[in-house]
Amino acid sequence: MSWQLTEEHLTDLARGAAVLGTGGGGDPYVGRLLVQQAIRESGPVTVLDPSEVDDEALVIPTAQMGAPTVVHEKIPSGEEAVTALRALEAHLGAEATATMPIECGGINSMIPLVVAARAGLPVVDADGMGRAFPELQMETFGVYGVTGSPMAVAGERGETAVIDAGADNARMEWLARGVTIRLGGVAHIAEYSMSGAEVKRTAIPRTLTLAHTVGKAIREARERNADPVAHLGEVLKSTLYGHLRVLFRGKVSDVERRTEAGFARGRAAAVSFDGEHELEIEFQNENLVALVDGEVRCVVPDLVCVLDAEQAEPITTESLRYGQRITVIGISTPELMRTPEALAVFGPAAFGLPHEFRPVEDI
Amino acid sequence: MSWQLTEEHLTDLARGAAVLGTGGGGDPYVGRLLVQQAIRESGPVTVLDPSEVDDEALVIPTAQMGAPTVVHEKIPSGEEAVTALRALEAHLGAEATATMPIECGGINSMIPLVVAARAGLPVVDADGMGRAFPELQMETFGVYGVTGSPMAVAGERGETAVIDAGADNARMEWLARGVTIRLGGVAHIAEYSMSGAEVKRTAIPRTLTLAHTVGKAIREARERNADPVAHLGEVLKSTLYGHLRVLFRGKVSDVERRTEAGFARGRAAAVSFDGEHELEIEFQNENLVALVDGEVRCVVPDLVCVLDAEQAEPITTESLRYGQRITVIGISTPELMRTPEALAVFGPAAFGLPHEFRPVEDI
Repeated sequence: MSWQLTEEHLTDLARGAAVLGTGGGGDPYVGRLLVQQAIRESGPVTVLDPSEVDDEALVIPTAQMGAPTVVHEKIPSGEEAVTALRALEAHLGAEATATMPIECGGINSMIPLVVAARAGLPVVDADGMGRAFPELQMETFGVYGVTGSPMAVAGERGETAVIDAGADNARMEWLARGVTIRLGGVAHIAEYSMSGAEVKRTAIPRTLTLAHTVGKAIREARERNADPVAHLGEVLKSTLYGHLRVLFRGKVSDVERRTEAGFARGRAAAVSFDGEHELEIEFQNENLVALVDGEVRCVVPDLVCVLDAEQAEPITTESLRYGQRITVIGISTPELMRTPEALAVFGPAAFGLPHEFRPVEDI
Repeated sequence: MSWQLTEEHLTDLARGAAVLGTGGGGDPYVGRLLVQQAIRESGPVTVLDPSEVDDEALVIPTAQMGAPTVVHEKIPSGEEAVTALRALEAHLGAEATATMPIECGGINSMIPLVVAARAGLPVVDADGMGRAFPELQMETFGVYGVTGSPMAVAGERGETAVIDAGADNARMEWLARGVTIRLGGVAHIAEYSMSGAEVKRTAIPRTLTLAHTVGKAIREARERNADPVAHLGEVLKSTLYGHLRVLFRGKVSDVERRTEAGFARGRAAAVSFDGEHELEIEFQNENLVALVDGEVRCVVPDLVCVLDAEQAEPITTESLRYGQRITVIGISTPELMRTPEALAVFGPAAFGLPHEFRPVEDI
């Protein structure tokens, strides 16, 4: 069923998207303000269930690209992603019938809504990551045969680059990252243009709805002084992300963070409240793996989410600070994200991690 | 008058282009082999005098982009620049009626000939630098109002990027350089697409002919045991490059060279044969300024050319070696390259040099 997304959805959606951002994906706060402004100017956004998209539709996903640490400092106008969409449309010689997230976590849950409102397009309730990932080849779209190229990159001064690396999505990422760095570390993009039939075959369905559901569950539990994490676990059981595990509770003891080659990389450590256990998280924009006392407790593509211990507010990697009291949770991912083909593209080895993938619910 | 360029022209043309390359522009030797192969496969290339180009013609210049130090190690197949041309044609929705050099010095005198032979197009006898320069905004095309964007960049695996930075040619250079670095330090490009009327207004005319003339003058003097530099000076008097000055004769005493941000930068020093005078040359891909005993003797856009002392064979910056016996000459440039608008784009200040431009013939 399609639905109308209004201003009232945005706070819950942003909070849920930050959870699905697993520490990265860019802070949805800025995105939320952009969507709010666009909806005030252009009215609510129609969110299309993927089952309702015509097989022949031309869906052009849109997103922001860059290191979250830079996004913090360069607020977009909201027009950049529309510029990228228009550049790709011009290249394709065809007009999009809808846009869609490539990434439902973080700011990229919001950017397609800005595009949808500004360009008068519906947005498809699905994405290609089912969370946030740092690189553009890490998409179920690509895993299941849709090429990212041609893609358009747009900068804040209206500059565009249309990149075509053929079927090599990692090469496309490499070139687009180079352009993004030269644009100051953040850019907006349109890529993985596809038919409605391809959306149904390759996208993780209903992840905008999921983000809203996650954010709403946390808020509702807070409002009735219930445990937000426990409530979120209950609510997730009826989704494709059925398993939530509390991995750790404690205080942040160390954060090491650097921006290199266009990414925010580093690690965070925490100590349990009783001082007996240690947590270590490695990240590349997003949290990649959580180890407790040296043992893997959750690893990509499953979600490692850091929440503040009291309110379960998600904490991004660039907001992690010494002394924060945190709850770290693991959330299972849909089967489409755990196939051997998918793990080859965004499993632990794709990030240079030495760990085998094991589903969080089996650890 | 249009003329047919055959294999027989190539050795002289390459030598002359290396002189006009002023130490950079890429070694035309590799380019010569590529043209030779293309002519053997496809026949001679028609060289159009700019006065003969239809005002409505679509001329798309082609070139190689990258640090000469890298070009040395990555030999192109010859197809890359055609790929760039085709990508720009597709973007423009129009077919080129001719190609043209953007740069008559170094390998970029040759690349458009490869394109011309392979694509069955004529090449216009003109260019936008009148020599070699390291950056894409340093074009008389841009100085006199033709925008470089949209431009196409092609890599060795057939990847393409079409960059549009609007009227900001320096921004276009910045983005294209980022792509080129990610492509391994060398790429092929098509840019500054223009009408025949714009060619006549903005290009330095007959610079392919000039390169051939320069190379031929040096060879002919050698064949009759005359002084090649003196003979070249005589021959140049009847061209737009009317003044040749011998700036220095001596031995290379030091070379400092580094590849950074996609450029070969550095400086070379030499000592006169009598040990009484010192030469210093600064370069960014190309030689920018020659100082003798600390005094400027020739500075961009005028040409600083390093020749071997015996045969007057041009020496590129990446071939400079300790102990080489050299003659350094300065050559004046056409008035179109010395206007205030032109000097703002490729005069000394554009390279961060503290020197005022003074014509080499007046120093």
